Amino acid sequence: MTPEEFRKHGHAVVDWIADYRARIESRPVMSQAEPGQVKASLPRHPPEDPEPFEGVLKDLDAVVAPGLSHWQHPRFFGYFPSNGTLGSVLGDYVSTGLGVIGLAWQASPALSEVEEVTTDWLRQMVGLSDAWQGVIQDTASTSTLLALICARERRTDYALSRGGLQGEPRPLVVYTSSYAHSSVDKAALLAGFGRANIRHVACDGRFAMRADALAAAIADDAAAGRVPCAVVATTGTTTTTAIDPVADIARVVAGTGIWLHVDAAMAGSAMVLPECRWMWEGVEGADSVVLNPHKWLGAAFDCTAYYVRDAQHLVRVMSTNPSYLQTAADGVVKNYRDWGIPLGRRFRALKLWFLIREQGVRGLQARLRRDLDNARWFESQVAAAPGWRVLAPVPLQTVCVRHEPPGLAGEALDRHTQSWCDRLNRSGAAYLTPAVLDGRWMVRVSVGAEQTERRHVEQLWTAMQNEVRR
Amino acid sequence: MTPEEFRKHGHAVVDWIADYRARIESRPVMSQAEPGQVKASLPRHPPEDPEPFEGVLKDLDAVVAPGLSHWQHPRFFGYFPSNGTLGSVLGDYVSTGLGVIGLAWQASPALSEVEEVTTDWLRQMVGLSDAWQGVIQDTASTSTLLALICARERRTDYALSRGGLQGEPRPLVVYTSSYAHSSVDKAALLAGFGRANIRHVACDGRFAMRADALAAAIADDAAAGRVPCAVVATTGTTTTTAIDPVADIARVVAGTGIWLHVDAAMAGSAMVLPECRWMWEGVEGADSVVLNPHKWLGAAFDCTAYYVRDAQHLVRVMSTNPSYLQTAADGVVKNYRDWGIPLGRRFRALKLWFLIREQGVRGLQARLRRDLDNARWFESQVAAAPGWRVLAPVPLQTVCVRHEPPGLAGEALDRHTQSWCDRLNRSGAAYLTPAVLDGRWMVRVSVGAEQTERRHVEQLWTAMQNEVRR
Repeated sequence: MTPEEFRKHGHAVVDWIADYRARIESRPVMSQAEPGQVKASLPRHPPEDPEPFEGVLKDLDAVVAPGLSHWQHPRFFGYFPSNGTLGSVLGDYVSTGLGVIGLAWQASPALSEVEEVTTDWLRQMVGLSDAWQGVIQDTASTSTLLALICARERRTDYALSRGGLQGEPRPLVVYTSSYAHSSVDKAALLAGFGRANIRHVACDGRFAMRADALAAAIADDAAAGRVPCAVVATTGTTTTTAIDPVADIARVVAGTGIWLHVDAAMAGSAMVLPECRWMWEGVEGADSVVLNPHKWLGAAFDCTAYYVRDAQHLVRVMSTNPSYLQTAADGVVKNYRDWGIPLGRRFRALKLWFLIREQGVRGLQARLRRDLDNARWFESQVAAAPGWRVLAPVPLQTVCVRHEPPGLAGEALDRHTQSWCDRLNRSGAAYLTPAVLDGRWMVRVSVGAEQTERRHVEQLWTAMQNEVRR
Repeated sequence: MTPEEFRKHGHAVVDWIADYRARIESRPVMSQAEPGQVKASLPRHPPEDPEPFEGVLKDLDAVVAPGLSHWQHPRFFGYFPSNGTLGSVLGDYVSTGLGVIGLAWQASPALSEVEEVTTDWLRQMVGLSDAWQGVIQDTASTSTLLALICARERRTDYALSRGGLQGEPRPLVVYTSSYAHSSVDKAALLAGFGRANIRHVACDGRFAMRADALAAAIADDAAAGRVPCAVVATTGTTTTTAIDPVADIARVVAGTGIWLHVDAAMAGSAMVLPECRWMWEGVEGADSVVLNPHKWLGAAFDCTAYYVRDAQHLVRVMSTNPSYLQTAADGVVKNYRDWGIPLGRRFRALKLWFLIREQGVRGLQARLRRDLDNARWFESQVAAAPGWRVLAPVPLQTVCVRHEPPGLAGEALDRHTQSWCDRLNRSGAAYLTPAVLDGRWMVRVSVGAEQTERRHVEQLWTAMQNEVRR
């Protein structure tokens, strides 16, 4: 494709996306495709000869769109929001169009330095001190893996330079809460700790980690000759957005050499609001923090911000230095390849830079506050409605609810919950994620898609009330 | 930004990229920015209020462009090519504009199923049997980490479900060649094996792993009570594109339970040409293969294809199944979150799908053959020029050269090499990557940027000859 053809087809793609976003509300939120439907509509073999680009674009309507669940839909209340605001989308368009790769600072200085500046802007926006340095990763899952590997290496004084985990005389142990994200366990397993060395610390009535239970678990392991290595605390758990007491947890680990990682993947965006910063009070006592601008804040996926206090340690664990990557600038610049797993890196900072400039801090704050208001309104409606219950505190924008008809309990209640939620999702009117809380199914309503206004929450609430009556 | 504003600004971004690509040849290939220059031109604090988008776009010219080394430039001969062909770029634009996330099949069925189909197309294109199943990862570095973790878990019969690497009585060992990519050592260290348990097997005169030396190293470790776990063979090493003898290596590990991972990050694209497939003969005896469509083939970065023969094993190692990710379709569809580290996934298949359809298999083959021809032409020129040497076989499109003036040897020769290469890079006329081979610096000339025609290679050769005379 020549640049002139790209100009023509590129305008068509932009128009297609503009139309998609403008009319997204008319689509069913959840895809109504059956398993295998998309696959069946595609050729089994690749084309030998080039196809006209118009045909490729046509398939966006014919094949792709019916197979999408629309995350940018104003009645998307599933999982957590993943807002790709259109200003940020354009930053990503520039990145892909440039096609530069950040193997080293010299391989594109702007890629490194804009990342350094924008992650520092974000640090200021969420109120972290200047003791922190940031880097963009793909996801919080990967960042938590980095954190646990860094914890492992600090605790063992760089066992990787010797026999690795295989050479350690006593097992290292990782602690997290029973409501931590599944990626924490996954990271601990991938990093080699083993399931026997993961502790799920008990939670309080608000589904937050109990610092006293953590202290006891650490003491137990130490007494048994094991080595407490890392704690992952969560600011805004996935199930209920529970807030682990970071300050109390930081006090438990202070001076012990145990690594404290704060998973603020969801709640991190809220820290742009000063009134929310109590949620991670004590975060300065942590060793690493992750937050996802690609969730609620609006950076196009994938854009996770990972912050560390000891960047030198991260680089020592992650760095490689083959001759073909060495350049004269190495001593005086940041080579972000040594801040994560992949060697090649996209110019991801552009989408964060565009987002912050196009919205301004005040614009972002206004939108976050709108969503908090909408969630509180919804919470109050559910709490006041007979037969409905709000099951967990609502510090952020996610409301956990259950419809509990008289006489229904146990597995029958589970069936009722899953059934109305599934019907609602299949109807296309809205998208919600069911989840298990205290052993019983409930439904999470996660407010905060960029296009979601009060009326969409009202429509959802009406649809939910209708659905449980069927 | 409203959809209508996006339409307007999106057209402007497309035009900017079209102009950038059309006129890229007039730019110096390597950025002439000094360390800190880009950073110094940016505000230290984020903007409180929204900025007009026109100002953001202006900074692309004022701040970003001068800080880029242009990977899409026709005289970019550094590292390996990373071609973001414009058809593929548009596939990525659709992905970012849609903003859907592949947490689960249900979260966007098309995201999963188009990935299933396109990775299968690519499998057919490179001549792998249908025993392989593919998934898109960000980079080969990450894929190699997955491979070594999968090796570790197969060898230990899923130690992750017990005490992890910490509970194993005997150390597991990883083997690779002394010219393997730096990401192999890095992956082994991150996976917990430890440097003491990585073997760099000796190479032959063509810089390829010696299968007999591998067999001897494995026997030594086994005799010493260690557990040989994984071999990483490379098809197209980074320094010289050397070709490890995969068939011989596969014979060494056959029936031993040792995992064989083939790193064909670079050469994998060449397998689209039947005449190149001898390079990974024996690959069907491997357990995993990685190749990078985002290198020479032309898929916009990041798009790495990772293939495994036992997908069930990969899923067992990587899967998590929290309630909030469970859906009714789970039993009958692929949930690619269980095929890698990140939970959230972009719709990356679109850029591969667009690439293959826009170019057709024949179009891709023609371009690859053009580059092979250009590299062979360049090799013949260098080989025939007095004072110049070609230092390694040229099976692909990378030529390793040194200018060796009479009387110059040792460190003085190194200084000469680095000096002329550095001058050439700074001049902006072309971009080359120096590297160490057999203990001495040389210069890699990696042909294959999409816009690179014979005349650009001729210009490079003239510039090199002029530069060494200065």
